Amino acid sequence: MEQEFLDWLQTRQRVDVEHAAARGGYVLLGIGDDGAVFESGKKPLVIACDSIAQGTHFDLNHHSLCDIGRKAIAVNLSDLAAMGATPLVATLSFQIPRSFSLDEVKEIFLGAEDLANQFDLEIVGGDTNSWDGGLVVGAALVGRAESSFWKMSGAQAGDDIVVTGDFGGSILGHHLKFQPCCELATKLANDYKINGATDVSDSLALDLSRLASASGCGAEVVLAKVPVSEAARVLSARENNNRTALDHALYDGEDFQLILAVPPDVTERLLKDNTINQDLTVIGKFTERLGLIGVTSDGSSKQIDAKGYWH
Amino acid sequence: MEQEFLDWLQTRQRVDVEHAAARGGYVLLGIGDDGAVFESGKKPLVIACDSIAQGTHFDLNHHSLCDIGRKAIAVNLSDLAAMGATPLVATLSFQIPRSFSLDEVKEIFLGAEDLANQFDLEIVGGDTNSWDGGLVVGAALVGRAESSFWKMSGAQAGDDIVVTGDFGGSILGHHLKFQPCCELATKLANDYKINGATDVSDSLALDLSRLASASGCGAEVVLAKVPVSEAARVLSARENNNRTALDHALYDGEDFQLILAVPPDVTERLLKDNTINQDLTVIGKFTERLGLIGVTSDGSSKQIDAKGYWH
Repeated sequence: MEQEFLDWLQTRQRVDVEHAAARGGYVLLGIGDDGAVFESGKKPLVIACDSIAQGTHFDLNHHSLCDIGRKAIAVNLSDLAAMGATPLVATLSFQIPRSFSLDEVKEIFLGAEDLANQFDLEIVGGDTNSWDGGLVVGAALVGRAESSFWKMSGAQAGDDIVVTGDFGGSILGHHLKFQPCCELATKLANDYKINGATDVSDSLALDLSRLASASGCGAEVVLAKVPVSEAARVLSARENNNRTALDHALYDGEDFQLILAVPPDVTERLLKDNTINQDLTVIGKFTERLGLIGVTSDGSSKQIDAKGYWH
Repeated sequence: MEQEFLDWLQTRQRVDVEHAAARGGYVLLGIGDDGAVFESGKKPLVIACDSIAQGTHFDLNHHSLCDIGRKAIAVNLSDLAAMGATPLVATLSFQIPRSFSLDEVKEIFLGAEDLANQFDLEIVGGDTNSWDGGLVVGAALVGRAESSFWKMSGAQAGDDIVVTGDFGGSILGHHLKFQPCCELATKLANDYKINGATDVSDSLALDLSRLASASGCGAEVVLAKVPVSEAARVLSARENNNRTALDHALYDGEDFQLILAVPPDVTERLLKDNTINQDLTVIGKFTERLGLIGVTSDGSSKQIDAKGYWH
């Protein structure tokens, strides 16, 4: 089955490489050889790799193969965005249960490719193995760093905590359907001074705390400012759920929004920039004092647990 | 467990990045962020990705974790060698059975790292997921193309078929312990005109036939010239085995030797080059006539089946 899949891929790829060449031509050799070859220009390159596995990141009973393929690319695009990098090329790695048909594998690939196309990301290679275990889809992405790239360790006390989008309840669908913040990241990395960044895969609280901790500082979040998603409210309103919508926003995983550490004067310019088509919210500040603090509406403060989706 | 593993990796990495910086500094940011950053210089880059999975590529009852980690890097190094590329950076992706301890995961990593170090390959990132399935170790490697890179489609009728090492019986140990041909590949890609190449993962017959077919030509192999390994002879001599040692050499998989398509005048220089510390054997020629032909010692010829390890 792997050979048939590879044959199918190579037929498609021939067209894709021509398409890529017409667009600027950084892919010199694509799918079907021992490796793929690309050119990078003069900017540093960023590599990210993340796999998604049956039972942990998706459920074959509830999620379409197309959405699963899409997610394998999306989580990696989100990592590139969190570095301020622009996507270039990807490899895909499939562990396929023996019961799967060729058409099912194609479906996963097409879901991946569809999202890749949206971000001018070329899928240039990969490998496929049938085995007795469950489905695993892994991807490795290479992107181009822009004028700067963003480290988790770069946040400074006094920086604003700026987040994209809203948070919580991703389990209701967002975890498969989210749009990675790649375009925003490319723009910001070129035009603004961002001190540090990460994406929210495990939870706003946990990833923010990691960013602060890697930077040797703490973070103070004004709880009323945290953008709470509609899905978080829906989940919270369910019977027998004693978690507030804010709890969901703070502690659910897989929002795949960005957390940015932004110097206050830069934030000011950023919020006035009409060319940015994405919700940006200042939810607090990075602080000298270590730890993660939530400020409530009555002005009192409490420790926020750095909890979320711990593997 | 993933977090503890990551913590352990990051402590090690700090030393490694300093080491890399001292050597020329292409890794700008390593393990622990959303991605790793590296510089490529001005040459095209080659990316290869291959995973190995429990039951297919290794057997937890018979193979050490260290050897499994080593193999995950080795098969990818072999792919870079088959492109004529020099290794730069790698990411590793682990799907870990829940029963595994942190020490066991470290052991896999150390096996991978040990081989990576031998080839100046920096492991710059990756991901780790515990799950209910079996062990999968995936890697994506980026290498630097030298003066030229080698396509599978580049062989020309009249080229010599030159192979490294010997073939067959890799199941007796070579499939885990092989030394990828990276140094030879870098040297040849810089100093010689090689028209096409691949590595032997599925079998000499199958991979040679793929190389010929991708190049629009055929191949004629002088069977007496095929370097048959000691392991192939040992296997063939076993009771109830009716395959000859040559059969093992032609059809066993995972030799991880290189097949090179070399213009005859280049072969001549190559075989006289005393700086090459690797066995090179001319086993035949690429031909206008399609298909894979074996020439026997009495001068007659027969079709060789393009069979081997088909996934």
